[in-house]
Amino acid sequence: MEEIVNPTQAKFAPITDAPGKFTVEATAGKARAAKLETAHGPVETPVFMPVGTKATVKAMLPEELKDIGAQIILGNTYHLHLRPTSELIKSQGGLHQFMNWDGPILTDSGGFQVFSLSGLRKINEEGVEFKSHIDGAKFFMSPESSMEIQMNLGSDIIMAFDECVEYPAEKSRIKESMDMTHRWLERCKAAMTRKESLLFGIVQGGLDIELRRESLKQITSVDLPGYALGGFSVGEPIHLMHDLVKEMGHEMPEEKPRYLMGVGTPLDLILMVDAGIDMFDCVMPTRVARNGTLYTWQGKISIKRSEYKNDPSPLDPECECYTCKNYSKAYLRHLFVAGEILSSRLNTIHNLHFYLHLMKKARKAIQDGVWESFRDHCLARFS
Amino acid sequence: MEEIVNPTQAKFAPITDAPGKFTVEATAGKARAAKLETAHGPVETPVFMPVGTKATVKAMLPEELKDIGAQIILGNTYHLHLRPTSELIKSQGGLHQFMNWDGPILTDSGGFQVFSLSGLRKINEEGVEFKSHIDGAKFFMSPESSMEIQMNLGSDIIMAFDECVEYPAEKSRIKESMDMTHRWLERCKAAMTRKESLLFGIVQGGLDIELRRESLKQITSVDLPGYALGGFSVGEPIHLMHDLVKEMGHEMPEEKPRYLMGVGTPLDLILMVDAGIDMFDCVMPTRVARNGTLYTWQGKISIKRSEYKNDPSPLDPECECYTCKNYSKAYLRHLFVAGEILSSRLNTIHNLHFYLHLMKKARKAIQDGVWESFRDHCLARFS
Repeated sequence: MEEIVNPTQAKFAPITDAPGKFTVEATAGKARAAKLETAHGPVETPVFMPVGTKATVKAMLPEELKDIGAQIILGNTYHLHLRPTSELIKSQGGLHQFMNWDGPILTDSGGFQVFSLSGLRKINEEGVEFKSHIDGAKFFMSPESSMEIQMNLGSDIIMAFDECVEYPAEKSRIKESMDMTHRWLERCKAAMTRKESLLFGIVQGGLDIELRRESLKQITSVDLPGYALGGFSVGEPIHLMHDLVKEMGHEMPEEKPRYLMGVGTPLDLILMVDAGIDMFDCVMPTRVARNGTLYTWQGKISIKRSEYKNDPSPLDPECECYTCKNYSKAYLRHLFVAGEILSSRLNTIHNLHFYLHLMKKARKAIQDGVWESFRDHCLARFS
Repeated sequence: MEEIVNPTQAKFAPITDAPGKFTVEATAGKARAAKLETAHGPVETPVFMPVGTKATVKAMLPEELKDIGAQIILGNTYHLHLRPTSELIKSQGGLHQFMNWDGPILTDSGGFQVFSLSGLRKINEEGVEFKSHIDGAKFFMSPESSMEIQMNLGSDIIMAFDECVEYPAEKSRIKESMDMTHRWLERCKAAMTRKESLLFGIVQGGLDIELRRESLKQITSVDLPGYALGGFSVGEPIHLMHDLVKEMGHEMPEEKPRYLMGVGTPLDLILMVDAGIDMFDCVMPTRVARNGTLYTWQGKISIKRSEYKNDPSPLDPECECYTCKNYSKAYLRHLFVAGEILSSRLNTIHNLHFYLHLMKKARKAIQDGVWESFRDHCLARFS
């Protein structure tokens, strides 16, 4: 029963061992349409990456993700490290084969979850000791072990291990932390030995523009195939994030992909594409779908509302997704009220389709030279 | 928002208004391969009908049911009557359109659930007063209202409203009840005015062969397009059900479909096909799938067991289902332990595929003249 899958014979082995090529194909102001090559195929940007925390995008099959246009998905290092462990996934041929997804995978570093989910932690220069949120067992994670875990998973894009500072925090605290994140990045790069994977560095610096610029300088002093903005979605007022990324998002290297971690709403995505960001991920569209909240071009819908009880119309008449083409609001409300699994499925299909097609349309608008009017149309409808 | 769908314009309107033709195509002893025409297409027997209690076969899409060979599904009158109500479903174009299933649907009469789920009930010649298991609201159901509800749903096969006697029960109690079920059947037939639907009568009589034969005589004295055996799966020792159906199943009219309600395991199905039964339904394959129990040709598997932690092999190497072709036991165990929705989905696909293909193989074996060897092969593996 303990047969091991040889990773080199894995069903979804990397198709290239020299990934990382990044091509900006069109621009409109700071917004860009680009393409990033990974070991499991290209990613066309701007792109939204559905979150598959525990080796599954909740309620979805890989084929369904492909059908609605998902190009790349995200896995969570913290969760997979605790259960089923990265060693187990490696023994099963890596994360692609384990979960039957043949496209690109990005994994976070575990840093964010260590800070957000683990109640008890001790942090020092070496790394972080923390307790599992599942059973309280003690773990230690360092830049080196985060790299090892992500290499075990066989990720196409590996995120550097960083410290994510709470909000609000003193400037001195943020400064110390971002300096350590820089030193940790050097250790991540030294530990990264898997040539099929791309290591992305993470810019920190809280909500202070000076510190952000200093962190950007530090992080980009390490030559890497991509850079991210981390440390948002920690409770700060959303307009502060908008202002900051508008100010300095486009100062990130032009010739490398720019990834804004953990953001956001449809409105956030359009604003941040306009600020020069290429890549996004967020649990929101999948999480709120399971709670009955649906994004439409007419605004957000809470499907449990009694006004939809007898409503034979689709969620969104402008939507081409499987859910909208085949089911009424009345049926979706019934499924939600009855607590049926199909409710989570149909809602998730719709919300992810909405996000993925929003980015697809943004890309086309940039390429077609109509970004500004598309952006303004979106802002008017989402605001 | 209160727009009403005209049922005659429903997406999945009946394709014939003269259904009911039943053709026995091959026999092997008492076992038969046959075909039943319904308003939404033919049903080839022996057949297993997946249970879609609340207008959804839990965790499954209609297209997935088709893919694994489902021909006809079952809906539960009791549940749909309480929520979202049959009037609402009628206003939405009927159950087929509401749930996006274009194949045949059989609905039970509500009788069984009134007895099994509703704690408080008062029964008399007129019908049954009962309290909703959801909120305690009082309802009254009679042969006439059961017919009306099922006609509202637009069912292709409508089951007569019967009383299901508890086990064990006195002979006099069983006799009185089955006599009333007979009188109720006459009222059901009189109330059935929808020519696209087929009304099936239900034979009762507990576990007493004499009473069963008497009930069979009563029920078949009403000319109907099909007959069922009800009143099993109420806690009786399973071998008593086997013995009784073996004894009298084939005494049911040869030229009409024979349906054994609420049964059973793969072993039950093979034994009861051998006794002359054509149609089956049971919540077991879908319910136990969600609890991590999988049927395979090597026996039942509890996927949560730690022995499967590192097991890269499929659930069943003899199985051609989507789950077995694409996922390992290690992954399925991980999903189950992590409580992921995908666990219910992949497990349900496998178990339903197992049941549906078991009946498909049984049909082919009867047609090919190799039923006895197929039956014995199954019994050896399932016993």
